Amino acid sequence: VYRDHDHTVGLPRPAVNTSATPITHHALRALLDPQSIAVVGASSDRGKAGGRPLWYLQEMGYAGPIYPINPHRRELGSLPCYPSLNAVPGPIDLCIVAVPAEQVEGTILDCAARGVPAAVVFASGFAEIGPDGQQRQARIREVALAYGMALCGPNCLGLLNVRSGAAATFTTALERCIEVPIGNVGFVSQSGAIAAFILALAQDQGVGLCSFVTTGNEAVLRFEDYIRYLVDDENTQVIIGYVEGVDGAAFVDVARLARARHKPLVVMKVGASVAGAGTAATHTGKLAGADAVYNAVFRQLGVVRARSVEDLLDFGRTLSEARLPQGGRVGIVSISGGAAVLMADWCELSSLEVPPLTPDTRTQLQSVLPWFATAANPLDTTGRPLWEEGMLRDCLTIMAQAPEVDMILLHVGLAPGPGRRIAEEILAAAGASDKPLLVCWLPESDPIPHAMLREAGVPIYVDPTRLVRSAAVLAWYAATSAAPTSSHRTFIEPFSEDMTDFQAREWLTRVGITMPREAVTTVSNEAVAQAETIGFPVCLKIVSPDVLHRSELGAVRVGLNSTGEVAGAFDEILTNVETSVPDARVEGILVQEMVVNGTELMVSTFRDETFGPVVVCAMGGIAVEVLQDRVIRLAPVSSTEARAMLSELRGAPLLFGVRGGAPRDVEAAADAISLLSTVLPASEALDAVEINPLIVLEEGRGVRAVDTVIRRRAEEPMHA
Amino acid sequence: VYRDHDHTVGLPRPAVNTSATPITHHALRALLDPQSIAVVGASSDRGKAGGRPLWYLQEMGYAGPIYPINPHRRELGSLPCYPSLNAVPGPIDLCIVAVPAEQVEGTILDCAARGVPAAVVFASGFAEIGPDGQQRQARIREVALAYGMALCGPNCLGLLNVRSGAAATFTTALERCIEVPIGNVGFVSQSGAIAAFILALAQDQGVGLCSFVTTGNEAVLRFEDYIRYLVDDENTQVIIGYVEGVDGAAFVDVARLARARHKPLVVMKVGASVAGAGTAATHTGKLAGADAVYNAVFRQLGVVRARSVEDLLDFGRTLSEARLPQGGRVGIVSISGGAAVLMADWCELSSLEVPPLTPDTRTQLQSVLPWFATAANPLDTTGRPLWEEGMLRDCLTIMAQAPEVDMILLHVGLAPGPGRRIAEEILAAAGASDKPLLVCWLPESDPIPHAMLREAGVPIYVDPTRLVRSAAVLAWYAATSAAPTSSHRTFIEPFSEDMTDFQAREWLTRVGITMPREAVTTVSNEAVAQAETIGFPVCLKIVSPDVLHRSELGAVRVGLNSTGEVAGAFDEILTNVETSVPDARVEGILVQEMVVNGTELMVSTFRDETFGPVVVCAMGGIAVEVLQDRVIRLAPVSSTEARAMLSELRGAPLLFGVRGGAPRDVEAAADAISLLSTVLPASEALDAVEINPLIVLEEGRGVRAVDTVIRRRAEEPMHA
Repeated sequence: VYRDHDHTVGLPRPAVNTSATPITHHALRALLDPQSIAVVGASSDRGKAGGRPLWYLQEMGYAGPIYPINPHRRELGSLPCYPSLNAVPGPIDLCIVAVPAEQVEGTILDCAARGVPAAVVFASGFAEIGPDGQQRQARIREVALAYGMALCGPNCLGLLNVRSGAAATFTTALERCIEVPIGNVGFVSQSGAIAAFILALAQDQGVGLCSFVTTGNEAVLRFEDYIRYLVDDENTQVIIGYVEGVDGAAFVDVARLARARHKPLVVMKVGASVAGAGTAATHTGKLAGADAVYNAVFRQLGVVRARSVEDLLDFGRTLSEARLPQGGRVGIVSISGGAAVLMADWCELSSLEVPPLTPDTRTQLQSVLPWFATAANPLDTTGRPLWEEGMLRDCLTIMAQAPEVDMILLHVGLAPGPGRRIAEEILAAAGASDKPLLVCWLPESDPIPHAMLREAGVPIYVDPTRLVRSAAVLAWYAATSAAPTSSHRTFIEPFSEDMTDFQAREWLTRVGITMPREAVTTVSNEAVAQAETIGFPVCLKIVSPDVLHRSELGAVRVGLNSTGEVAGAFDEILTNVETSVPDARVEGILVQEMVVNGTELMVSTFRDETFGPVVVCAMGGIAVEVLQDRVIRLAPVSSTEARAMLSELRGAPLLFGVRGGAPRDVEAAADAISLLSTVLPASEALDAVEINPLIVLEEGRGVRAVDTVIRRRAEEPMHA
Repeated sequence: VYRDHDHTVGLPRPAVNTSATPITHHALRALLDPQSIAVVGASSDRGKAGGRPLWYLQEMGYAGPIYPINPHRRELGSLPCYPSLNAVPGPIDLCIVAVPAEQVEGTILDCAARGVPAAVVFASGFAEIGPDGQQRQARIREVALAYGMALCGPNCLGLLNVRSGAAATFTTALERCIEVPIGNVGFVSQSGAIAAFILALAQDQGVGLCSFVTTGNEAVLRFEDYIRYLVDDENTQVIIGYVEGVDGAAFVDVARLARARHKPLVVMKVGASVAGAGTAATHTGKLAGADAVYNAVFRQLGVVRARSVEDLLDFGRTLSEARLPQGGRVGIVSISGGAAVLMADWCELSSLEVPPLTPDTRTQLQSVLPWFATAANPLDTTGRPLWEEGMLRDCLTIMAQAPEVDMILLHVGLAPGPGRRIAEEILAAAGASDKPLLVCWLPESDPIPHAMLREAGVPIYVDPTRLVRSAAVLAWYAATSAAPTSSHRTFIEPFSEDMTDFQAREWLTRVGITMPREAVTTVSNEAVAQAETIGFPVCLKIVSPDVLHRSELGAVRVGLNSTGEVAGAFDEILTNVETSVPDARVEGILVQEMVVNGTELMVSTFRDETFGPVVVCAMGGIAVEVLQDRVIRLAPVSSTEARAMLSELRGAPLLFGVRGGAPRDVEAAADAISLLSTVLPASEALDAVEINPLIVLEEGRGVRAVDTVIRRRAEEPMHA
């Protein structure tokens, strides 16, 4: 009986206490690239978790020593069998622990005693089954940490080093097909069964892998620890991952490291839907973080987010196979006019540019094209390259050398006759430039043409849409990894818990966020005097922690044009509040400058449960409430980054001044966002601040934080 | 030498003059399901367009007589060869015309003389190459129409009846692989090369086809004519199409017919991007219609729009293989928790509901699940069904019989050992209910399990995301085809060309669209009197066909609260207009009620170049200008349909009154849209009418068409 599943109802994954008992790189290497392997619970039954790895290790040609451990056997197949770990004659890098849950702790202790640096535990029956299992898991964690043992699992499908054939796994994917294409994509998954499924798809699609890791319950090593190892691993060029929830801080660290080392990270994060999040929560014992924050953080860190298995593999292999382009301007070459149009459509949908060709490029192309073809981008070569030698090579070479183009997308589609010549022409053109060249071409009955391209590192796709979407990811990653990481402000004065709401506004003013001219008073005459100082028109608002819906209760009056109107409004507001919220604590009445002729933003900062402080900007009014036009970043952000946030809003044209409107003071808005983004990291007592509206005036006239809401740590958390 | 291309730089496709010389169903049947085939230009060379069909016809086992025509040969392979069409002994249904362009006309005349009802012309060198070719094309069109001949092409790859093996095509897809899975999906394409590519993909993915048609230059038969034939064809259950541009009226007719006959139509329309539309225009000689209108019309007619080749085949085969669900409530069953979450996420993205299970369903499931699994939707069965017999069958059966669920999505992923048993359990559950059941399962080395499912009509997918998206299309199509088609208003008084702009407003009032209280006058005193009648505040606006940007020129004054303000504003507006547009024709000054406290819509109607009159509604302000939140329908629409349009706006909550706002008078807004949608079909002289803003007041208080722009036929056309 075998199990290929991943049902884990666990507690939150514990963090590795790396400062106390570090899991060394040496131990991790013993786990992920073992030189010798012992199998405790070894069996000759290929249906069992202790039999399957033995079979796989031998089938995949693993060259290191394999030590089956089973006191009841002298040998297993052609391998000598040992009664215990202690009886093994040579050193052991990795112990595959294929015994039931009750025997795992003893085996781990044996490993520790024998000095085995790494272990993988298949058994379920740990944190996912309740309190008993949790205790069992805590004990093996304790042992592993005490001895610095790199422990994978429990409740996992194990791992596989594709190059060495170190198959410390019992996944059924290898039963279905033992061949795994060797490449430089490392794959780490928090789910076992879907990992097996993805591995099988990678096999079917010829995606070259180097590592396959299922993390299981993550008693010791977490998803992020494997990623960190692969970032350092020279055989790994791209890392793809499946996650249900990450450790925010560790993920941010390792993603930054990956970016610094130019190793693309492609992650499929599930649990974005209500129904999906429900299961993910049961499933991994970790509530799925707010999806919008995941999206924003991934984007900010240069992590490619895959939404589907197909995308995960397409994006991963594209980043591993293709060169990086210098920009997002695409030259499309197609033997089918229809495919050319389809690809151009998808370029636009995917934010790739299909620029018009320069006269020079057009002239060159026209000299090699048939007379009835048009030298344009996308380029429809007509079917003639299929029988006219050199035409495709010439078109591709001219396009690849055109300065207006950063990458070439080629649709061949079908070429059952002249396949090898076509492949040669593609390779000739690919060799004539450094620009990436991606090809859509169905497998032919003759495998040679595709093998030629694959050999030369030219990525091949079976669908023009998937090709374009992969090209867009390539361009995005290239742009992101080339962008400088900007430094950000540090903050000076933290929020103090005992501030009143109005004092908090004054504190935000000291932080650097401009409020309208305003003052709070409890005396009618003073309100009138303040209004005269501020200048008419003004508005009056109650200041009270107990009055939440101020407008509805008549606790706000706007557009007051005279001293008389101010005095009247003052009394009216107090009366209204007394009537509707009799025991409200009233700090006073705010007299405030009326701010007009600006564009409204909503700007806020809050603590995400996974990633900690984030900052949000959004268009005000209808867009915020209904259309959810907002951009999120990890806090703090620099003014430059804040400006980029503003430009990512769908409503950005309203700020930047196209479509007839005067440009707004984007610099001041960006400064305000940047300043606001510093307050949570510095203020333990603060949970969230929302400025709504932040009115952005015309260029050079600044912003005004008209209303602010402060949420202290103890209060109900605020969500994006 | 063969050609598998589709480069056609042609004139607009001529419409079939069906009233003068109808192409009969009999002739179309001879083309699409021929009982005998002649090949003019027959050759023994498989690389030639005259050799390839002979080869394919014999390889595919076409059972009717095949008559090769070639005066230089006595036989071709085992077939007797004839010197001319006249020499053929039996009747000829279809003539494959495989001769160069110059000889086509003669051959078509021979066909006519011989009484051949159908012909397919491969040769290029017609309308796509310029004036000479256009004349050549016009001549064969004339002959074909005169004799009622169903003519496919010219400049096409031909067509294929998959069931009979009538391969009147020279596509290289069949050289690559001669086997075409037989099914009930008909495929019609305006492009040849991409059609060949799609045919090859259909072969690779096992999508069962009945017909394959490439329409070429459409000299006689257009895309829509083939669709109409397939709607009537009993072997065809689903029609998939690739188009670059359609004949709007013919397409709407045939799409309505397909809907009435319950034959799903899935269409990939390309040319949505600027770069793509450029090529499509060159490519088919027809400007790609405004993409948003295509989208809207497809949606309205129940046509599924595919955005990629993958979608076209996925959606087509799903609609042909799966039962239609009664609703969009999905039960997800998965052997992998990860895949369950992924599918739930995609259901939400695809507007499918993943409802919580009723206590009854939960109880039933819990009784068959392992104790550590949770009975929920999505349902993670754990991997246990792989080794525990009956569990999957029971889970699926309970889910399929649950009243809260309309369809079942199952993820198996991999099952290399127990595949046949798993397939049996799926079939047992599928047989126990009428609900559709879709399965994600990679091909195993044992082909039997998949063959069992395929045999029983259970669709199988290799990707959970593609499965969910296909399921969403299934649910959408089921809901759309079940919806009643509502009747719409007819219009009474047409627009008259000689109306002034203000008279046009009065005419719109008679149409039934409510304007604010208003009057036009050229005299200051009258303006003051009108303002008093209307009630303050009012606004004043210039009425002149020559003043376009009224606000910028100071030709509008709002918020006038007294007779003095009105008199002052009247003079000021006239002075401003005289200064800035000295020779402006001034019809007068509009005195208008100020409309406040409403939600702004933009409502318009215009003539789309492909589909004719359409009506548009959009949120006003920021949303219209920047976020393009709008909904389009073919005009006219009923009030019910107009209400549906409003509910499809992203900003709909602002009208319907959720999120704290008071509900607006949606009925009145819907009536206004419906009324406006009637004016273009009735008014030849009118090109477009835009009401912006149409202010929608609170429930029961109606709407006010504050500003209207009328565009007459001769003027510059307006675009959505």
